[in-house]
Amino acid sequence: MNRTKIAQLYADAEAFGGSQVTVAGWVKSVRDMKNFGFVTLNDGSCFRDLQVVMNRDALENYDEIAHQNVSAALVCTGTVKLTPEAQQPFELTAESIVVEGPSAPDYPLQKKRATVEFLRTQQHLRPRTNLFRAVFRVRSVAAAAIHSFFQDRGFVYVNTPIITTSDCEGAGEMFHVTTLDMENPPRTDAGAIDWSQDFFGKPASLTVSGQLNAENFAMAFGDVYTFGPTFRAENSNTTRHAAEFWMIEPEIAFADLDDDMDLAEDMLKYVIRTVMDKCPDELNMLNRFVDKGLLERLEHVASSDFARVTYTDAIKILEDAVDAGHHFDYPVSWGIDLQTEHERFLTEEHFRRPTFVTDYPVEIKAFYMRLNDDGRTVAAADCLVPGIGEIVGGSQREERLDVLERRISELGMDPEQYKYYCDLRRFGTCKHAGFGLGFERLVMYLTGVGNIRDVLPHPRTVGNAEF
Amino acid sequence: MNRTKIAQLYADAEAFGGSQVTVAGWVKSVRDMKNFGFVTLNDGSCFRDLQVVMNRDALENYDEIAHQNVSAALVCTGTVKLTPEAQQPFELTAESIVVEGPSAPDYPLQKKRATVEFLRTQQHLRPRTNLFRAVFRVRSVAAAAIHSFFQDRGFVYVNTPIITTSDCEGAGEMFHVTTLDMENPPRTDAGAIDWSQDFFGKPASLTVSGQLNAENFAMAFGDVYTFGPTFRAENSNTTRHAAEFWMIEPEIAFADLDDDMDLAEDMLKYVIRTVMDKCPDELNMLNRFVDKGLLERLEHVASSDFARVTYTDAIKILEDAVDAGHHFDYPVSWGIDLQTEHERFLTEEHFRRPTFVTDYPVEIKAFYMRLNDDGRTVAAADCLVPGIGEIVGGSQREERLDVLERRISELGMDPEQYKYYCDLRRFGTCKHAGFGLGFERLVMYLTGVGNIRDVLPHPRTVGNAEF
Repeated sequence: MNRTKIAQLYADAEAFGGSQVTVAGWVKSVRDMKNFGFVTLNDGSCFRDLQVVMNRDALENYDEIAHQNVSAALVCTGTVKLTPEAQQPFELTAESIVVEGPSAPDYPLQKKRATVEFLRTQQHLRPRTNLFRAVFRVRSVAAAAIHSFFQDRGFVYVNTPIITTSDCEGAGEMFHVTTLDMENPPRTDAGAIDWSQDFFGKPASLTVSGQLNAENFAMAFGDVYTFGPTFRAENSNTTRHAAEFWMIEPEIAFADLDDDMDLAEDMLKYVIRTVMDKCPDELNMLNRFVDKGLLERLEHVASSDFARVTYTDAIKILEDAVDAGHHFDYPVSWGIDLQTEHERFLTEEHFRRPTFVTDYPVEIKAFYMRLNDDGRTVAAADCLVPGIGEIVGGSQREERLDVLERRISELGMDPEQYKYYCDLRRFGTCKHAGFGLGFERLVMYLTGVGNIRDVLPHPRTVGNAEF
Repeated sequence: MNRTKIAQLYADAEAFGGSQVTVAGWVKSVRDMKNFGFVTLNDGSCFRDLQVVMNRDALENYDEIAHQNVSAALVCTGTVKLTPEAQQPFELTAESIVVEGPSAPDYPLQKKRATVEFLRTQQHLRPRTNLFRAVFRVRSVAAAAIHSFFQDRGFVYVNTPIITTSDCEGAGEMFHVTTLDMENPPRTDAGAIDWSQDFFGKPASLTVSGQLNAENFAMAFGDVYTFGPTFRAENSNTTRHAAEFWMIEPEIAFADLDDDMDLAEDMLKYVIRTVMDKCPDELNMLNRFVDKGLLERLEHVASSDFARVTYTDAIKILEDAVDAGHHFDYPVSWGIDLQTEHERFLTEEHFRRPTFVTDYPVEIKAFYMRLNDDGRTVAAADCLVPGIGEIVGGSQREERLDVLERRISELGMDPEQYKYYCDLRRFGTCKHAGFGLGFERLVMYLTGVGNIRDVLPHPRTVGNAEF
């Protein structure tokens, strides 16, 4: 089929004026005015619709088309008529319309506005709505921008493994992966499950982070990044947690925490600018119907320097706020894990922009983070953004073998599990750093959508893995 | 650290001539000629090394550097000296060299050439070798090229889910995913495992394909693609099978099998050209040491039209070959599943280029492939390439609800499992097609590497999920 996409028409309307084209897409609405009518058609190539004008005189199957249901697939051939006075810059005067695939009156997404909760039960159809058409194009453009950002800077993309036999990642509860017959697994003489008969010869799980693997590659390529799915088997039924989500984890050699924060800030601004540039229609709709502050916030973040504050100073700011009469549910003192209310105060009320909080107490951070000279904090940096909270968690990694081994031992971890990781410190160790960006949180930030279930094509959460 | 990458020096050597720069990287070799010496340094930013020249007079820690082990991390400051007569276009005359991280004499990858089998036991270090430095950069550049190819054409990237509760995909054995205590799972009164207590409330697995989900999005966006990990729990210990691998699955609406083949051919040529353009040093090395026909083959494929032959004609070609005295281990007759020997004969001996075989017997292909008018073949197209075999498997999808439902019923599949899939045919169905490209097979083809274990950062195969 020699078909023109609606995006092409909008990209160069003048050039198409007066030409005959064939457009194929799905009906959003049909209006029948008896002798003429309008079909609003969308083909998914862009957010905007095409208005198809049909005249009873010119179209022998006028009545057939006038009675099509929402979401019918049509192939429309006609002439592009420029309409500089009208709201849309052109329309298509139909010469023939063929029904490629009809829809039905029981199509679940009729024109009336459906709730997002209902649409979650219609995940196979919801991409056809304005909301999800916008969200999933933004998601795609943001993903491509992340690849461009890193590739343009010479980073090597590394597909770290999803299945892991390390039980040591410690970032959260893990899903087991097995091929054993779970009803009746093979057992050893002692009665325990005989893991040697499992697919990998031992227990396996779904990864919670590719970081330790990414470090292997950073020590060869210097700058690398991952972008793939990660998993948490946590029973947390919130608007911000999914069991399966995508994460970006860059890792940079010969780099410290400042380099790491610079990279995260540059990346976030680049992605925001790219989405603003490539998805103006989508963002306008989201700004109008989902989050009225969206465009202003994105513009602000893309053009302002992120704040940077140490954890110690952040605690002082929070304590001062308490002294000034601000109420927090959780008490504030040096050593606490910052709660959402604290993070929101810092980024939304105090700094009013994205804020890196750095140098957290060693007790509340992971073993691989570099111990600062004060002996009680580590070179970590979390980036908090207004409305979302933590979006990036990063750190300089402990590159000193002796310090790392001491930490592993202090925490009672199994050194054998970290042999390879320590090898990187034995053979040409260097300062290095990295961070993890939760991709869905970024998409929520870019779209103003408040529930992670609505930025994942088919979300997996506690009790839910339909579609 | 204000550091210059070696890739920057090679990109604009003239401009750096006479300037002082700081370079940080890892030692590939040190040669000590008593009063002067050479350090070959690689920082991972490009395939090429930097030759650092050190003079005893100029370097107070000359002896320390001269005794560094392979893979030590060094920070070298010096002057770029253009050497137009020498093999490398420039070298660095060192003014200071700081040992960022020493290596050790027991570094497992000494200069002598290690076997790929040994290197598979050193997956955390093997990216530092020439072979894997080349393979994993080609992999990264190819992945980025795939994103560019689709994004430039307006395709929407869809992250289809990894965890699935459909037991219906049928493309291969699946891994179970569970959070139940496998030693002692909760049981119903009848003694069976109580799946309602599992994380998703029912049995779950790792996906073998994102296609059915991708179709949901193709019916909204027109053109979409996936690029993510997929899984096979097959006990096949071959050089071409891994339990975890990455797949690209485009899906295009208002498109038939010819459009699908055009897309696959354009994509393969685009990726090959991009890798040839961006990784000349890597390909030259691979051509020299891994596969002497590599460059010639890639050039040939990028510039020649792929052959297209129906299954029925392919069988005739094979039968004629048998008549002419060619021996196949597996007998040839209409209806057989083509064996590797048959595929290789077609693509390597008969057509001598990548070859699409189309319109296979309905009995040997998946339920969702569109039934041809002859009633005995389906609109499938597999792309075979010399040296690899099948690299792309595609088809036009059955868009007719009645035919699809009949196939589901004939095959004894559970219609309830396909309710959503059939909905796409109820509400605005249209001709559409798609294919799956095994990314590791493509990387093998691009690099000449013969074992899938050597193109995956940390391969997962039967009995192996280390690192």
